[in-house]
Amino acid sequence: MDSWLASNLENVAIALSPCCGCSVANTERDVNLPGTAAVIDVLEKLLAVLYPGCHGKAPVSHESCHHHLKETLQEIVEELYDQTHRSFEYACNKVKCIQCGDCKEKARQSVMALMDGLPGIRNMLQEDIQAAYEGDPAARSTMEIVMSYPGLYAITVHRIAHALYRQGVHLIPRVMSEHAHSKTGIDIHPGATIGAGFFIDHGTGVVIGETCTIGKRVKLYQGVTLGALSFAKDDTGALVKGVKRHPDVEDKVVIYAGATILGGDTVIGHDSVIGGNVWLIHSVPPGSKVYNQTPSPVIKPSGQ
Amino acid sequence: MDSWLASNLENVAIALSPCCGCSVANTERDVNLPGTAAVIDVLEKLLAVLYPGCHGKAPVSHESCHHHLKETLQEIVEELYDQTHRSFEYACNKVKCIQCGDCKEKARQSVMALMDGLPGIRNMLQEDIQAAYEGDPAARSTMEIVMSYPGLYAITVHRIAHALYRQGVHLIPRVMSEHAHSKTGIDIHPGATIGAGFFIDHGTGVVIGETCTIGKRVKLYQGVTLGALSFAKDDTGALVKGVKRHPDVEDKVVIYAGATILGGDTVIGHDSVIGGNVWLIHSVPPGSKVYNQTPSPVIKPSGQ
Amino acid sequence: MDSWLASNLENVAIALSPCCGCSVANTERDVNLPGTAAVIDVLEKLLAVLYPGCHGKAPVSHESCHHHLKETLQEIVEELYDQTHRSFEYACNKVKCIQCGDCKEKARQSVMALMDGLPGIRNMLQEDIQAAYEGDPAARSTMEIVMSYPGLYAITVHRIAHALYRQGVHLIPRVMSEHAHSKTGIDIHPGATIGAGFFIDHGTGVVIGETCTIGKRVKLYQGVTLGALSFAKDDTGALVKGVKRHPDVEDKVVIYAGATILGGDTVIGHDSVIGGNVWLIHSVPPGSKVYNQTPSPVIKPSGQ
Repeated sequence: MDSWLASNLENVAIALSPCCGCSVANTERDVNLPGTAAVIDVLEKLLAVLYPGCHGKAPVSHESCHHHLKETLQEIVEELYDQTHRSFEYACNKVKCIQCGDCKEKARQSVMALMDGLPGIRNMLQEDIQAAYEGDPAARSTMEIVMSYPGLYAITVHRIAHALYRQGVHLIPRVMSEHAHSKTGIDIHPGATIGAGFFIDHGTGVVIGETCTIGKRVKLYQGVTLGALSFAKDDTGALVKGVKRHPDVEDKVVIYAGATILGGDTVIGHDSVIGGNVWLIHSVPPGSKVYNQTPSPVIKPSGQ
Repeated sequence: MDSWLASNLENVAIALSPCCGCSVANTERDVNLPGTAAVIDVLEKLLAVLYPGCHGKAPVSHESCHHHLKETLQEIVEELYDQTHRSFEYACNKVKCIQCGDCKEKARQSVMALMDGLPGIRNMLQEDIQAAYEGDPAARSTMEIVMSYPGLYAITVHRIAHALYRQGVHLIPRVMSEHAHSKTGIDIHPGATIGAGFFIDHGTGVVIGETCTIGKRVKLYQGVTLGALSFAKDDTGALVKGVKRHPDVEDKVVIYAGATILGGDTVIGHDSVIGGNVWLIHSVPPGSKVYNQTPSPVIKPSGQ
Repeated sequence: MDSWLASNLENVAIALSPCCGCSVANTERDVNLPGTAAVIDVLEKLLAVLYPGCHGKAPVSHESCHHHLKETLQEIVEELYDQTHRSFEYACNKVKCIQCGDCKEKARQSVMALMDGLPGIRNMLQEDIQAAYEGDPAARSTMEIVMSYPGLYAITVHRIAHALYRQGVHLIPRVMSEHAHSKTGIDIHPGATIGAGFFIDHGTGVVIGETCTIGKRVKLYQGVTLGALSFAKDDTGALVKGVKRHPDVEDKVVIYAGATILGGDTVIGHDSVIGGNVWLIHSVPPGSKVYNQTPSPVIKPSGQ
């Protein structure tokens, strides 16, 4: 390969050099984003304070637990402040803002809001854990849920990402939620609003869109989509960003595997049950039971 | 952020401190669980003895292979004994048992059963590899299957996890199976009983429940659910744990993508073929062919 | 466990020792494959030159970017040459070829073709990024797509894997594509041919078969299968490998979530729209709109 290195390496490197508007590189110039690995590092520290000793190699000693919490919280604050600061500056720069003295302040506010909100997030997660324990006959202990359930992992990351999203931070929570999607197959946009006592069983293939709202004690199974029906376009034909386009699911609804519920005007009334594989694009009143009147499949006996 | 660190850090750390019954922390007190990262370490060592040289950076030298096997097996024994011991003690403690002298013995028995069973597990895996090679026209070599097929990864982890589950170990096999679920999108509960020559193609979205039994030379495609139809509740309204609630699939059955088969009384007779997206909640006799009589979709030509 | 180690360790190690034809081990003898971890290392370096500074911990400095590209490209060339060389020798050995002097030359040609093709791959990826930005109302910047969208990750890995596949390298691109499958839930066989401006939204459960061809500016949603209808068998009953068995999708087609399109003779004409959950096993002309005439699900109001 020596001849290729001598003759072509330089040219390929030049051809791959990022230009100003090519949007594929995060190179240090004026303002820059954190790399995805740095964001995931902070996320793992957040998991380590929410569930001490559960996801590492060994338990945290009882005596050192308070020290572990303080030390890890301090690292999170410092790293996340730097990341959100860069992220606000980057977004600011994107829209040609010149006067950006408040990016530091916005970063400070965002990080403080998340940190001060952590005890409240943990209270919600305890309700989520309890809902999983009560909802799954296979669960033998709440610790099994903390250590192995993908649904709990996904909602934990979501509750963190959503807190940042509400502060106007965008890229960092998206990197976090896609990390959870990668690990669990559960794709929850950081914008979705989800009440306490939420349980997703199995979870692979679940999609929950940005403008969804979900009430308390809702239970979903694998492959459920809470999505958009169609996308509004502006006069130029470009998609309009930011409009309400995903459904509302009220308290104590159960949605079985593979059901698809679409549209920003669709409301699933509280205490409803939506059957497996149902396709629903309009609202149903509280207490509804919705299921497919599936014609039985054809069964040909042996030899026919 | 210095003012936040000075004023609020201590309070947030106190608010996040695990209390006795909050079930979110694994802190060293009397008995403790291994962390999930430690369990996954042992799992990767088990893969390294079942498939030497395949999943690391380089092949194992032929001369050192026996030494590599012995050394890795010894590490597995020591680490897994510690982990199962803690896991039994933890479960024991949970049900307020005081007299726990036999936790060590139970851990010893469990680890020995797994280790002595490894050659038998590898024989089954060789049948699984052969089934994948014969069942997938895209497979060019059996080594391609070992190195890249998610279905083989999932069944390998399952055969290990199931061996521990049968010894009464619960949390450790669940952490292993959810690690495989995370990597492959295939969710097999460690309790499921699965015969040799098992092949899952593509695999994303497959769910196989705790009380399933699956015969020999069965083939599944992506998105197949072998699940529960409904959950029995006791007098207090709580779910009854441990009852048979998932189907039995007999030898040489093929189940195509997206099929859903539910219920503890459902038996799919041997040599049956279940078509894509079929929804089946009752038994079918051996040799059945089951498919949806799908009405053709509506096709609107261009301009209509 | 000491007694087990003294009495049984040796026997289990012997029982697990790989034999010549057992196909479960990659042990250094004459020729050998790279381990999967080594292949994934090279893949991550390729991502680092295509998206500098995006996936690591920090941005790449603007001044050092050219140096970073050259250095990383050189590492890729050296490692990938070694890996493809081993891979050709291994395949060669498998079919009992004795005279293998050209394996080095084939490896050299393959690596040069990939490296010289990288700038062209990056141009296609920029069209993919633009398609994602225009196709998803939730996307706020193109950098969000680079850093977090699983669809872009999967098509990036595919474009690399496909370039190697076209050079006759088989195992290495399969390990790469299954790594992307593991991270994203999107399973694209390296053999599939996919045009520029390709966008997969959400993505979990997507399967794209080896002999698919997909035109320009095609958009897929989660759970779409472009698969085989049935497999041809030879006189001995073994599957015939290598025949065309997956569909062709022409330019500017949109395929909604959960649709299944099967068969090597199936052609989806350009500018067609295929609705959610449609099951299609024959061709449709350009501009078709295909959807299920789903009977509305049964809705039982509360109390019934």
